[in-house]
Order: sequence, then C-alpha cells, then structure tokens
Amino acid sequence: MAELHLLSPAGFRAAGVYAGIKTKQNPDVGLLLCDRSATAAAVFTTNKVFAAPVKVGRAHVKSGKLRGVVVNAGNANACTGKQGERDALRMCEIAASIAKCKKTEILPSSTGIIGHLLPMRKLERGIVEAGQYLGTSLEHARLFAASILTTDIQRKEAATSLKLGRQTVTLAGVCKGSGMIGPRMSLAGPSPSSKKPLHATMLAYLTTDAAVAPPLLRKLLESASDRSFNAVTVDDHTSTNDTACILASGASGANVSSSRDAKSFAAALDEVCRSLAHQIAADGEGATKVVSITVRRAKNTAAATAMARAIANSPLVKCAMHGNDPNWGRIVSAAGLAGVPFDPEKCVLTLQKTVVFRAGRPIAFDAEAVSNTLDAPEVTVDLDCRAGTGEATVWTCDLSKEYVTINADYHT
Amino acid sequence: MAELHLLSPAGFRAAGVYAGIKTKQNPDVGLLLCDRSATAAAVFTTNKVFAAPVKVGRAHVKSGKLRGVVVNAGNANACTGKQGERDALRMCEIAASIAKCKKTEILPSSTGIIGHLLPMRKLERGIVEAGQYLGTSLEHARLFAASILTTDIQRKEAATSLKLGRQTVTLAGVCKGSGMIGPRMSLAGPSPSSKKPLHATMLAYLTTDAAVAPPLLRKLLESASDRSFNAVTVDDHTSTNDTACILASGASGANVSSSRDAKSFAAALDEVCRSLAHQIAADGEGATKVVSITVRRAKNTAAATAMARAIANSPLVKCAMHGNDPNWGRIVSAAGLAGVPFDPEKCVLTLQKTVVFRAGRPIAFDAEAVSNTLDAPEVTVDLDCRAGTGEATVWTCDLSKEYVTINADYHT
Repeated sequence: MAELHLLSPAGFRAAGVYAGIKTKQNPDVGLLLCDRSATAAAVFTTNKVFAAPVKVGRAHVKSGKLRGVVVNAGNANACTGKQGERDALRMCEIAASIAKCKKTEILPSSTGIIGHLLPMRKLERGIVEAGQYLGTSLEHARLFAASILTTDIQRKEAATSLKLGRQTVTLAGVCKGSGMIGPRMSLAGPSPSSKKPLHATMLAYLTTDAAVAPPLLRKLLESASDRSFNAVTVDDHTSTNDTACILASGASGANVSSSRDAKSFAAALDEVCRSLAHQIAADGEGATKVVSITVRRAKNTAAATAMARAIANSPLVKCAMHGNDPNWGRIVSAAGLAGVPFDPEKCVLTLQKTVVFRAGRPIAFDAEAVSNTLDAPEVTVDLDCRAGTGEATVWTCDLSKEYVTINADYHT
Repeated sequence: MAELHLLSPAGFRAAGVYAGIKTKQNPDVGLLLCDRSATAAAVFTTNKVFAAPVKVGRAHVKSGKLRGVVVNAGNANACTGKQGERDALRMCEIAASIAKCKKTEILPSSTGIIGHLLPMRKLERGIVEAGQYLGTSLEHARLFAASILTTDIQRKEAATSLKLGRQTVTLAGVCKGSGMIGPRMSLAGPSPSSKKPLHATMLAYLTTDAAVAPPLLRKLLESASDRSFNAVTVDDHTSTNDTACILASGASGANVSSSRDAKSFAAALDEVCRSLAHQIAADGEGATKVVSITVRRAKNTAAATAMARAIANSPLVKCAMHGNDPNWGRIVSAAGLAGVPFDPEKCVLTLQKTVVFRAGRPIAFDAEAVSNTLDAPEVTVDLDCRAGTGEATVWTCDLSKEYVTINADYHT
C-alpha cells in the first residue's frame, strides 16, 4: 500500500512555494484546496490578542463550508490593526480566484513574527504561484507541510484509514509547532470566563474524504484537539495565531452518520491529532526528548489536567529532564502548586517504570540506573493520585540551552 | 550612623555556622533568637506539598508569640513523612534549650533538596554550636543571612528605621531566593479554593524592636508579602518551603497602636520587603538583569496581577530580555493569554521609556536604540491597559543558559 499523506483523501490538491518571506529559502506560502465545497470546522487560539487571520478565519468557517486554506510562514500578521485584516482578506481573495469560489470560502493562516505588516507583493505572487503548482502527490503534500514551518526542524505529518461500513475513508493531517507552543484552542473566540490554558503558534490542517455534517465535525475536532494539540506545551505561551482546521470533502461517498461510524471516525481523528501533537513536543525548540506526563486517579479530570500541565510547564522539571536527573521532588511540588486537590501522602510517582515516591515518603532507588533510563528520546512520568477518576496526559519536551539560544537571538 | 542590619532592632541575637550539610563550606545552620517573648507572624507556601518545618512552623506561630527561628540550608526536609516532622520538632527542641523556652516557641525552616531525611547528627551539633556563637554584631547578622542561602550568589539584607511618635524603632530583614522561586504565601494553609499563584524556596526573616499586637502584625505581613515576595518570580515554581516570618521584640518601648503608627510601620515594612524581593529577582538563578513589569489601568487588580505574572513567567519574554530583543509581540501576547479582560486595541506598551505598541498597531521605533537600552541591569516593562484602575508590579529576571546549567546539573 502506498504511503498515506495529506492528499490521500480524495478531493484535495495542495502546493507549497518559496515567496521570499522567510529568510531561509524554504517554502513559505501554502495552498490547500478542495475540488468541491467541503464541510469544515476549526478551533482557534483563546488568546485575547489574536491575529488578523484568526479573526477572518473564525468568520469564514462559521458557515461550516470551506473550499480551502491559504497559509504563510515568516510573518504572523498579528497586532497589525485594520491593515492586517485587509491583508488576510486579500490572501483569501487570491486563493478564491484560484479555487473559483468566494473569498469567504477560504480560511487564511499566518505564522511568524508578531507586529509586522505582511509583505503583500511577495505574498500575492506566492499564492498565485502556488495555484500553478497544485497537485495531489506525496511531494505536493510535503511541500505544503513544509510551507507552514518556522523554527521547526521536521515536517509533521500523520495519516490513517478506516472502514465506514464497507467503504474505506482516509484521514490525514500536517501541522507545525516548535516555539510559542501552549495551544488552548476552542471553537468560540476568547471569553473572559474561559478556563482553558493557552500556548505557541500551532497550525494544523486535516483532510478527510468522509462526509461529515458540520455540527458533528465541530464536536469531533474540539474533542480531539483537547486530547492532542491542547495537551502539548513547549513554553506554555499560547500564541496569537493557533489554528486547527479540518476539511471533509465527502469524495469517498461514505457518510459518517451512525453513532458507530462517529465513534470509529473519532478514534481515527484522535490517532492522527495525537500523532501530530506528539511530533510537536518532539520538535519543540531545543528539545532533545519528549516527556509524557500522565496524572491518573486525580479527584477529577480538571484537577488531573491542571497538575499535568503544572508539571509539564515547570522549568525546573524540564531542566531536570534535560539533565537526566531523577529529581522527583520538583515533579511532586509542581503537582502541589497547581491549586487543585492533591494529597502527596496518597500518591505514587513513577519515572520510566521506577517508583520513586509513595505515600509521602521517598523510596530507595538506584538514582544512577533511573538517570540512565531518563537518557532516552521518550520519557514517561506517571503520577497516580489514588483520589478519584480524573486522568490527563500532557506532552512536553526538555528545556535545553538551545531553547535559550533560539529565543534570545531571534531578533525583531 | 552605623549601618543598620538584622540585629539592629533591640532584643535579638543570631549566629550562622557551617555544620557540613551544604557541600560548599559556607554557613548552613542559622539561629535567630529574641531575648524575650516576641510577637510573631508568618506566611507560608500555599503549595499542597509542604515541608515538615512548614507544618510545624504553622502550628508554632499560631499563638502569635515566638522566641526565635532555627534554619538549615542544603536539605528541605520536604516529602520526608513522619520522620521529617520529628526532625523539625527536634530542631526546635535544641534551639529551645538554648533560648530556655518551650519548643513550641521556635519556628523551624529548611531549604535545599527535596526528599531526603535531614542529617540530624550534623544538624544537632550545628544548632548547639550556633548557640555558642550568638551575638548582635553586623558580622553575626551576616553569618545568619549567609546560613540560609542555597544557589544564591549574594546575601540579601535590608533595614530601615522610622519614628513612632518621638521614638525611633528599627525594622530589618534577610532573605534567600534564587531558584524554585514563585512564592504565593498566605497566613492560612493551602486551600483548594485558593486563587493565589505559587513559586521557589523563598525564606525571609524580619526583626523589629517595635511592639505590635499579633493580629495587626499578621495583617501587615500578609499585605507586605503580597506586594513584595508574592510579586517576584524566577521560575514560577512555588516551593514546598516558602516562609516569611517577622518577630517584634517590643524592646524599643514604642508601640504601634494608632492607625497613624500602623501606616508608618506598614510603609517601612513594605520598603524592607520590596527591597528583599528585588534582591531575589536580581539574584535569580542565571539572572543577568531584573525585569520590572507593571500593568496599569487594567480592569481590576486581579487582572493586572494575572497579566503581569503571565508576562513575567513567559520563557519567550525572559529569553528576549536576555537577548536585549525588543520583541514586544511576546509581551502583548503573554498579557493576552492570562485569561483576564484585556483589549490590545486600547493598550500602550512601553519598554524602557520607549512606546513600542499602541492601540493594536505597531509603532515605528529604532529597534537598535531600544535594544541598547535593554542592555541594562534594570529593565522596565509598562503595559497601560486604559480599561480601569487595576495596577500590579511583578519582578522577574531574564532566562539565560546559566539557568539551564544550574538546573540540569543540580543532581539528586
């Protein structure tokens, strides 16, 4: 079987071209179009400071129908006022002239530096050029995946297929991450009462050739995002531009209608989104490893999530992970500072399968042996609270000097 | 006039000795005693995981009276179970035998690595030795100040005097900070409903020869802590051991009784605590500069505090400060992710007196000139929200590679 990719689901074409927006000569303008009106859903940053393309994208996706997505990397078009909105709309207009649709059927995205107007001449030329290179091959999928990257080292891609009755449908996605990563995306805009955490510019685009009604697609995307993109943090700095968008072409002829189909589709969507989120953690700025933090049997899910995030975001925990140091006191104390019910006298903390703390007391363990197990690309931290049924997993990466180098030297 | 120090207020004696708990041969056991029963108040960490000395200290200070404080550095006596509590009480017992008082009149503190039992033989000998070296000189004050340090490079000391009517009273303090710094201390213990943020092992001891009634002293300490210790963050990791304790000997004969006296005393206490908190930020692990973040005219104080903390804790902002990068997009977006009312269209952001962002749009400024002004030991960030009357200032430091070195290599 050929390798599945973003353009394996029937009905989609894409391109990625270099338009001179990034300093390095890599693709920086991407176009992903559907040959028909696709059912669409998107979640966006809950940051009160959101970029122009987020404002425009929110409005355009409301109808539940889109023809495609236009993206640029190298400039976030954030904090750019009215001109920024006009520029985001202009991006849609050019993409729409290629797709032969209305500009309101295009979702725009941008990622990069905040506070600079888009270089529209370069960008307009780039979108037009992308329109000339549209295709359905693996190479086209890869160029689009590359066009959304900023400080990412790796492309991030995932795909799967599933049976809906006797028909096979495909589901795929690409994303970017790396820095300013702490997504807390929701369907709605930012709301003062939102309790969701916020973080990086994370962009994700998902395609499927299943047919899914807009309300169901929204629900499935929101739920999958919470368990994937919204559960990854590099620096807990929710970006102004975070966006995850799914387009369902329906070109397979298979419809997600029964609750059994919805369950299968949700599982496949979870799988793709979780793979992408994991790739974001692995490619976090300066990362040398992924740290998966699971808090289980907490009082409730909110408590488990708050503790897992507090552990994932502690610079002390992240530095200890970088140094392969089984300094479990930092982990337990991070759980304790989350401001949710937690009793250290009851909990059990396990690092890479070794129990290091139980019932309020340290446990004798071979620190050197555990340190050796921490020297791995995948590290698991498991905190069993023995207090309820709440469970949450959050992915992060270690904190290295390279993170400081990247972010102290990335000059405006 | 002679230099004021921790032992300038009448009635106090102190010592600091090396007992072999720290690896480096610096004082690691401190004793601070009052020659009479002092009025006392203390605030403690709100972390759900709190050390044995915090549990014991909370119980002992409840009476509002103490005879002194016993401290060790190098071992936090946290996550040490029942044995940890017995050890903390034993510290009090030995100090009490020196002060000739009850063990419940002593407040114990510890700071250092989590999860190891105290080396009691060394520690007991150290406390006894400290008892033999008690004195009132500047040198004694400095030895005590040095005995509480861990990764701190500098001693942290502050003192002032004020007039209460025609009498002069003195107020002084010492503290430690450096790493695991994000204090969120309160008079009460941790509470599930606490909305206070949490952070490092911060220890602070304050002395005065004024007479202050316990309820007033508690109120003044809590209020001063909120505006000083609880407003400093190095890594936002609230420690298991954070403690600030004030002892009022009353030996000056002057009583803080009128509301006018209380106001003067509160101002002096604020001055001392804010000086100490500033010294913590300046000596944060790996710090090369202090960053003072003021959010003004926010909807309310809680919103101002949340935004100032979000800015202070963003690794992206801290790295930009380290690199002298006027990357204001990171600051504005950090304010936006705090989850409180904030409208970027209304705000004005000023870096070192240069306006860089106003009313949702970037402002042309000389990036190189602003970068030069950021290359300073003191940097100010001022965000005027133009939305209300809330104001808050938070101090932090920059994030350097040295922070990673210290915390990836500080092995258990």
